[in-house]
Amino acid sequence: VSGFVSLVGAGPGDPELLTVKAVRRLQEADLVLYDALVAPEAVALALHAQRFSVAKRAGRQSFAQDTIHRLMIRAARQGKRVVRLKGGDPFVFGRGGEEALALASAGVPFEVVPGITSAIAAAALAGVPVTHRGLATGFAVVSGHAEPAYASALDSLAPNSLTVVILMGLGSRRAVARRLLDRGWAAGTPAAIFFGASTPDAASWVGDLGRLGDANLPESNDAPGTIVIGSVVSLSAAIGRGAVPDVAVALAGVAR
Amino acid sequence: VSGFVSLVGAGPGDPELLTVKAVRRLQEADLVLYDALVAPEAVALALHAQRFSVAKRAGRQSFAQDTIHRLMIRAARQGKRVVRLKGGDPFVFGRGGEEALALASAGVPFEVVPGITSAIAAAALAGVPVTHRGLATGFAVVSGHAEPAYASALDSLAPNSLTVVILMGLGSRRAVARRLLDRGWAAGTPAAIFFGASTPDAASWVGDLGRLGDANLPESNDAPGTIVIGSVVSLSAAIGRGAVPDVAVALAGVAR
Repeated sequence: VSGFVSLVGAGPGDPELLTVKAVRRLQEADLVLYDALVAPEAVALALHAQRFSVAKRAGRQSFAQDTIHRLMIRAARQGKRVVRLKGGDPFVFGRGGEEALALASAGVPFEVVPGITSAIAAAALAGVPVTHRGLATGFAVVSGHAEPAYASALDSLAPNSLTVVILMGLGSRRAVARRLLDRGWAAGTPAAIFFGASTPDAASWVGDLGRLGDANLPESNDAPGTIVIGSVVSLSAAIGRGAVPDVAVALAGVAR
Repeated sequence: VSGFVSLVGAGPGDPELLTVKAVRRLQEADLVLYDALVAPEAVALALHAQRFSVAKRAGRQSFAQDTIHRLMIRAARQGKRVVRLKGGDPFVFGRGGEEALALASAGVPFEVVPGITSAIAAAALAGVPVTHRGLATGFAVVSGHAEPAYASALDSLAPNSLTVVILMGLGSRRAVARRLLDRGWAAGTPAAIFFGASTPDAASWVGDLGRLGDANLPESNDAPGTIVIGSVVSLSAAIGRGAVPDVAVALAGVAR
């Protein structure tokens, strides 16, 4: 009898944006290894599990990736149902691929449970679609975490083409904006930063690429931010006004 | 008292990949307008609702987009809780932006409930991460539905750069492959097509860009397909082998 590992995406923050499958895996788990950006309410669903933070945040590496692999493999070999819970989607800059490889080569059975990624949802929840007829025929998602990686990714996009979404790019927003401007992107290209999407701390900055580098961040900013650059951002005024951020309030007034 | 519209993503097919919020909205709905690619099990969650297919499939346009807007707006004005249920995510090539604009300009309150998009999940469920250290620093998502749109999107990517994901591209796979090859993408670039991701009919073709145009499709193919092009596809052998497609079988042998 062998254990089992589920690499589970926890979505952008709101526990209601967990999938049904993610909730089920958490409820049945014996061990949950979770990241910093996962909501406490999501972790709390694992009523019967040992719950263990393996948080890594900007630079401070609390747990080496190897250690996480070893913890998962050991627990699975002890017959445990392990949930590796990651913010967003496990395969979008989540090192989920590395964890899946480690599990596969250790012969530990596992599965991937996709999650809602902020790459799409952060904008959507503020009324900005990453694609829209006449405005964007596609979108590109890049990590702003490390310079060689984002530089080559940004350089691979023709100026003023696809919607560009940058995850983990708050710290590098000046360098990112400079790089795109230098490559010929128009300074007037609409741009936005969405903070803490789907959480009570949700906030946004809307401007353009020319001003992105100097965008002010919220004061006590522990919330992650998603940068979106492209004409679709111009829809935020028209769509975002209509969208109701707290639907519970809206629904309170709805007759059945 | 006014009604309310939720633009809800139903995910790639497996009803367990609905979000908790999507399930709740369906259970509370008075009217559900759903697309062709939505699983019947998802629609069936709307126990108290009138359920109405507004299916549009490849060319055959059963309902004009305008008609869908009018149906939503009228029902909301009658005080109904309306769920507009779309395959995948409502804002990824789902015309969700157009529907949100129509609702906003009609003054109808609405919200967006993001869904799991096949753009990421189709590959993930087959063991392919769209990003992976050393292999892909980002990914681009393009619709293969209409030629002028996909041509300009593909042309905006530097050859052999980001992972390319093409939705609704089964019919145009020859033209897409030819276009990328002509622009200098290597014929040996790993490529795959994932059919019916997350459903019992899931299947895949794995090869390379040079052979993508001639890839055979499953015989009775009503399932949608997602094309993925890039080095990350090479991970499918190592990761996909370890991943357990039907976790119920795997869990049956797990001791608590």
